[in-house]
Amino acid sequence: MPPAKLQAKTPDTRLIIAASEQDANLYWATQFLAPDPIIYIQHRRKKYLILNDLEADRGRKEASVDHVLRFSELEREIGRRNGRPRGYLEVVAHFLKKKGVKRVAVPYDFPLAYGLSLKQKKIQPHVMPDPFYPERLIKTRKEKAAIKKTLSHVSASIQAAYRVLRESKVKKNRIYWHNKVLTSEILKGVINGHLMENNCLGKHTIVAGGNQGVDPHCEGSGPLPANKPIIMDVFPKSMDSQYYGDMTRTVVKGQATDALRRQWQTVKVAQEHGIKMVRGGVDAKGIHQWIMNYFEAQGYHTGIKNGRMQGFFHGTGHGLGIDIHEAPRVSTVSQKLKPGNVITIEPGLYYSGVGGVRLEDVVYVTKGGRELLSRCPKILEIP
Amino acid sequence: MPPAKLQAKTPDTRLIIAASEQDANLYWATQFLAPDPIIYIQHRRKKYLILNDLEADRGRKEASVDHVLRFSELEREIGRRNGRPRGYLEVVAHFLKKKGVKRVAVPYDFPLAYGLSLKQKKIQPHVMPDPFYPERLIKTRKEKAAIKKTLSHVSASIQAAYRVLRESKVKKNRIYWHNKVLTSEILKGVINGHLMENNCLGKHTIVAGGNQGVDPHCEGSGPLPANKPIIMDVFPKSMDSQYYGDMTRTVVKGQATDALRRQWQTVKVAQEHGIKMVRGGVDAKGIHQWIMNYFEAQGYHTGIKNGRMQGFFHGTGHGLGIDIHEAPRVSTVSQKLKPGNVITIEPGLYYSGVGGVRLEDVVYVTKGGRELLSRCPKILEIP
Repeated sequence: MPPAKLQAKTPDTRLIIAASEQDANLYWATQFLAPDPIIYIQHRRKKYLILNDLEADRGRKEASVDHVLRFSELEREIGRRNGRPRGYLEVVAHFLKKKGVKRVAVPYDFPLAYGLSLKQKKIQPHVMPDPFYPERLIKTRKEKAAIKKTLSHVSASIQAAYRVLRESKVKKNRIYWHNKVLTSEILKGVINGHLMENNCLGKHTIVAGGNQGVDPHCEGSGPLPANKPIIMDVFPKSMDSQYYGDMTRTVVKGQATDALRRQWQTVKVAQEHGIKMVRGGVDAKGIHQWIMNYFEAQGYHTGIKNGRMQGFFHGTGHGLGIDIHEAPRVSTVSQKLKPGNVITIEPGLYYSGVGGVRLEDVVYVTKGGRELLSRCPKILEIP
Repeated sequence: MPPAKLQAKTPDTRLIIAASEQDANLYWATQFLAPDPIIYIQHRRKKYLILNDLEADRGRKEASVDHVLRFSELEREIGRRNGRPRGYLEVVAHFLKKKGVKRVAVPYDFPLAYGLSLKQKKIQPHVMPDPFYPERLIKTRKEKAAIKKTLSHVSASIQAAYRVLRESKVKKNRIYWHNKVLTSEILKGVINGHLMENNCLGKHTIVAGGNQGVDPHCEGSGPLPANKPIIMDVFPKSMDSQYYGDMTRTVVKGQATDALRRQWQTVKVAQEHGIKMVRGGVDAKGIHQWIMNYFEAQGYHTGIKNGRMQGFFHGTGHGLGIDIHEAPRVSTVSQKLKPGNVITIEPGLYYSGVGGVRLEDVVYVTKGGRELLSRCPKILEIP
């Protein structure tokens, strides 16, 4: 019997049961998109997919794995019980036992019910920390290019919104485009439509004006105000590559007040300095801390005011890839940036009355610094 | 101490930790859309959300729960450890202990890592069968209307595709629209664009022609063939209501062969008979079985032929709601239909050479029968 220390090592078999459309680790490992849960096993450097009859032929064509097995064939090997189909875990346990596997590494979000069922079948699940594949956070040249491409569509969609605002007219603090009141919904339609033409899916695009923008996740609705900040946060997934882009710009149709102009400039300085601090080996927490301190020093305080959070109360940034939010985070938690990481830098300041301001770009971390992957003019006022 | 039987009862506290955008149970319970994991606790008929500072104010406005608590405030109650932020489970355990809770019901896909962590903290997770809220499968009048509305957009988008095919011309087995070769991508663009205008998101719309359609999940790509079946399977989620629609039509631009005409008619008869069999109290397995038998009796066999599955090798239907695939299934497994269920009926026949044929509609189950929620002409040939 091996010593306890060896026992505790990560098992050399990995198991994921999930819909790859919603599971970045699984899509990354297989390059196979499935809308319903599929079974993935990695055993001694070989990759296996166990698929139902509906998916097996497509899997053989599309998946980058070594073997595609039919669920129905494995089920036949063990036989049905009382004529009822076998469950996922019975088939999985059968396969693992054939290979002599007693312990499997599973992702942190492996379903609890499946974990308990494996244990019952004398196979120990070993929960791995997130992400299941840390390699996923170091982007290849191809992945970097995919993100950059999505970002180019994001930039073009924001500039399409700029054009709409430029063509619009202001009457009594409202904005009119083609003689119709311009709403968040219409401007979102322009942005999402442009994205869709490029096979990018803008699901919760934010176009929030005035006080709506003080809530960073408010998507925005109704007529957009003139002379008040409008936050546009655009983060679609490319249906071609599956990689996200994520950018934010804040503009005013008409004229900004002095208070807003100063708030916007403060965010811009913080964002650009934050980007310059990005470098391989740096602790991302330091970037977040610098921005928080800078805002405080400029007189922009954070805390609950009139019953709602105001100031700067979200992280400075996050990793970006097949997931919209992945490691590393740029926040209050220590996380060392590594060359190959792709992260956003997106500080913001939010105050009732003045409104919300956020600026966001995406950078690729290199050994000596960073490469800016998103390019789009930062404009405060659109006359 | 209570007897063992009582101990085994379902706990009266429920816990979900998930992103409600991807978790139908959580969205159903809270009506609050969040892109990142949030904490939901139901304790003695009261609903609680524990949200970070970024989401708390929006949660108070939008969520249909009794209490929205700030994660940061609960974290402050237990204090940081070595200055590091507390994890989700530490805060959850703190809250549950304050309420005197020792056992919590969790969904089957509750993350294994969280389940083990709860156990360590002396709180027993009790895995519930899927769906966590069986009430979710009995649609209210409002939910039925939401699905019907999404379906009306689906129907209009398919009819937009019919128009494109009608306007197109056939030359040498290719289809030309405005003098350009008509591809799957173009026709998907027409369908998805129409859906997007109505705030419905068509994510993996299928427009697959000829042999591509023999693989039921192939999305289709490249030039569409004339005189061969084109499967259009359209299943968007409404971004307004969050409810899905799902319909399939199979058409030919030009002329169908006799073999295809017979295959199409056989599927149509099977689908229409299947719909007529839907009624509250009926075992859905019987409907699937009837269709399989009918196909066999008509000479349409199912099995592996020339190395690929051919015939009818997927379920006859599935429940539809906030999830695209939910219970009850119409398949080889016994499942009793209940009044209020919303299900698809979508048999298909797939043979290399002839191509694939699938017809799909959505019905609402009533005590005495069914109500058809999807309406769209079934046409085989478009001249």
